[in-house]
Amino acid sequence: MALAEFREVDQPGFTRRAFSVPYQESRAWVIKRMEEVGLAVRIDSVGNLLGEMPGAEPDLSRIVIGSHTDTVAGGGRFDGMVGVIGSIEVARLLGEEGARLRHPLVVADFLGEEPNRFGLSCVGSRAVSGQLTDAQLTRPDLEGSTLSSALRIAGAQPQALASARWTPDQFHCFLELHIEQGRRLEQAGSQLGVVAAIAGIHRGVITWTGRPDHAGTTDMAERRDALTAAAEGVLLVESLARESGLGVGTVGQIEITPGAGNVIPGTAIASLELRSADAGWLVDAHQALAMGLMELASRRQLDVQVDWVSAEAPTPCHPGMRRVISEAIEGIGHRPLELTSGASHDAAHAAHVCPMGMIFIPSQDGRSHCPEEWSQPQDVALGVAALLEAVIRLDGLDSL
Amino acid sequence: MALAEFREVDQPGFTRRAFSVPYQESRAWVIKRMEEVGLAVRIDSVGNLLGEMPGAEPDLSRIVIGSHTDTVAGGGRFDGMVGVIGSIEVARLLGEEGARLRHPLVVADFLGEEPNRFGLSCVGSRAVSGQLTDAQLTRPDLEGSTLSSALRIAGAQPQALASARWTPDQFHCFLELHIEQGRRLEQAGSQLGVVAAIAGIHRGVITWTGRPDHAGTTDMAERRDALTAAAEGVLLVESLARESGLGVGTVGQIEITPGAGNVIPGTAIASLELRSADAGWLVDAHQALAMGLMELASRRQLDVQVDWVSAEAPTPCHPGMRRVISEAIEGIGHRPLELTSGASHDAAHAAHVCPMGMIFIPSQDGRSHCPEEWSQPQDVALGVAALLEAVIRLDGLDSL
Repeated sequence: MALAEFREVDQPGFTRRAFSVPYQESRAWVIKRMEEVGLAVRIDSVGNLLGEMPGAEPDLSRIVIGSHTDTVAGGGRFDGMVGVIGSIEVARLLGEEGARLRHPLVVADFLGEEPNRFGLSCVGSRAVSGQLTDAQLTRPDLEGSTLSSALRIAGAQPQALASARWTPDQFHCFLELHIEQGRRLEQAGSQLGVVAAIAGIHRGVITWTGRPDHAGTTDMAERRDALTAAAEGVLLVESLARESGLGVGTVGQIEITPGAGNVIPGTAIASLELRSADAGWLVDAHQALAMGLMELASRRQLDVQVDWVSAEAPTPCHPGMRRVISEAIEGIGHRPLELTSGASHDAAHAAHVCPMGMIFIPSQDGRSHCPEEWSQPQDVALGVAALLEAVIRLDGLDSL
Repeated sequence: MALAEFREVDQPGFTRRAFSVPYQESRAWVIKRMEEVGLAVRIDSVGNLLGEMPGAEPDLSRIVIGSHTDTVAGGGRFDGMVGVIGSIEVARLLGEEGARLRHPLVVADFLGEEPNRFGLSCVGSRAVSGQLTDAQLTRPDLEGSTLSSALRIAGAQPQALASARWTPDQFHCFLELHIEQGRRLEQAGSQLGVVAAIAGIHRGVITWTGRPDHAGTTDMAERRDALTAAAEGVLLVESLARESGLGVGTVGQIEITPGAGNVIPGTAIASLELRSADAGWLVDAHQALAMGLMELASRRQLDVQVDWVSAEAPTPCHPGMRRVISEAIEGIGHRPLELTSGASHDAAHAAHVCPMGMIFIPSQDGRSHCPEEWSQPQDVALGVAALLEAVIRLDGLDSL
């Protein structure tokens, strides 16, 4: 709640976007909280906050826990924050109990996980996994400014990006505590979830090209209506996902031209998103949709084009991590629910470096990315207890 | 083609919207053409150009022929213009042949037939039929200016609007030559059409209210997606019209909020238009749609609301006028095709004053309201010949 006080006052909800003044101010606050529990904080070249606690066996690789503290516009107070504050609390509890881990422990607050004005998400975690490209750094926002210059203004050193990269042999594992942002835990009456995989996302833009005719003088049979064609497409996306039960499909935006009540739509341009933790389904649905949209449009004698703009495969969580997390949850007297994450996370990028796992706690009514986003304090506390228990168990292992 | 030279240079196609400078300039040109053929021109209080030729029997009521010369943005060179220039040509031919009609003949160029920035069409013809209301006159455009002030700037006298009104006993009939703006004449291989009725139009705005959720974390079954609901609605409008064969239904515009690729649409707002020359179908379709949209939305557990913003009944053409026009077309050696007009026209308003009829000529590929709008010169000439023949026959009748 204290962190949520750092907010952009001209935005709705709890807004603290990466590169905003309140975000910059909040990071000084986070550093202070890390230092209070004895973590030695450093800021890497991309702007990630990394608070380290030395291990009893200094040659061992690091255990990293954490998440992010930025929000979407009009966002809430839990997405990301639970993982960062929860990890600081784990460090505090370890210190309080005088428990010394064998491995060094790092609490990470990754820079800018949410999509930013440069059209990029997970800036900090992409950098540590070596996946932040020069093209992404020089991508301009609407005003022509670049991610690179925004990083520089925020005090980071984008020219020294390579130094932020994690080398696999120095990292034991990454573990992220996060809110579910969906309803599965709530519906199952479960308080703790083990993530099996983070969904892959295929994104595209669909363009239907018909013919803009006079809405009064063109018989129904003569029409090449881009919107009615798009309507069939939108319903195809829905039915494909719904009938499979293996993924979700969404058309979140559609724009029509000419866009007048008395003119038959000549073009319709829609966003398309397919998400699934099942790599095979994603590929199949992608194909089926491309074919199905073509078929529907050709029946109406108009053109359709799908431009796929990205295709990220699902990220399975490490089997060893899943097992340890499940045992940790059972160890504190709860029953773990295994589930997949429809949203993407910093963990998906960390997975390129080392074994990765995630713990979910329930989101009330599944709401997220809105001011109503809420998780019960007792669930947050349970999440932290599970995280602590998992860290202790992971610390006992030499490899995963 | 000469009239089309008066165009707004910063607009696509042949744009000459009411109240634009090119429109004002074109009216001086039209007056000159009217005067050249011997018409005595007066401008009424709403800005209609009325060129009169006296009849041999001055006490008889007037025969009015004409149309309009304004265009939509990005429009063409025939919609309206064929009727005005064609009517001037009829006056010229009558003068050339030394034929003197019994009735006075008026060539009308009605002010602003196309929808203008005040959201109103048929300004001039509404005024002559006494249907231009004070509320319409004071309706503001986006910049807060009113139709009344636009009329005043254009040199009209909106404060003396009542003087523009036509009294039924002084008007024998109104006859409008126009392009079809559809494909029926072309498909039937016919060059001349007799309009049986001008379609009525019911217009509405449909609002679906669902719930904007995270597109990655919300299962398909949990969604209240306003766009998928709207897609079913769009297809219902289409099938209702298509299956009946009695009217057309169009959704020409739709807007989604929040409108992001990764957020399930929370609301969808769409325009709705039903048109038919069949009054019964219009009422039935209106009802069926209101019910059907409700049913579809309630199956998806979301709300839908239809706000009907206007409901104009069809305007049948006068049976006597239809007969005379058919006979005139046969009289010049052609076969009339009876058809309905999906578009509205000045004639629909004139019909409130006196017997009304319309002659259609083919539109190439049915295109209209676009730069490609085209009618063959020989078809325009045939239309003028039919108009002349019909005027002569109407002049011979004491009543219709």
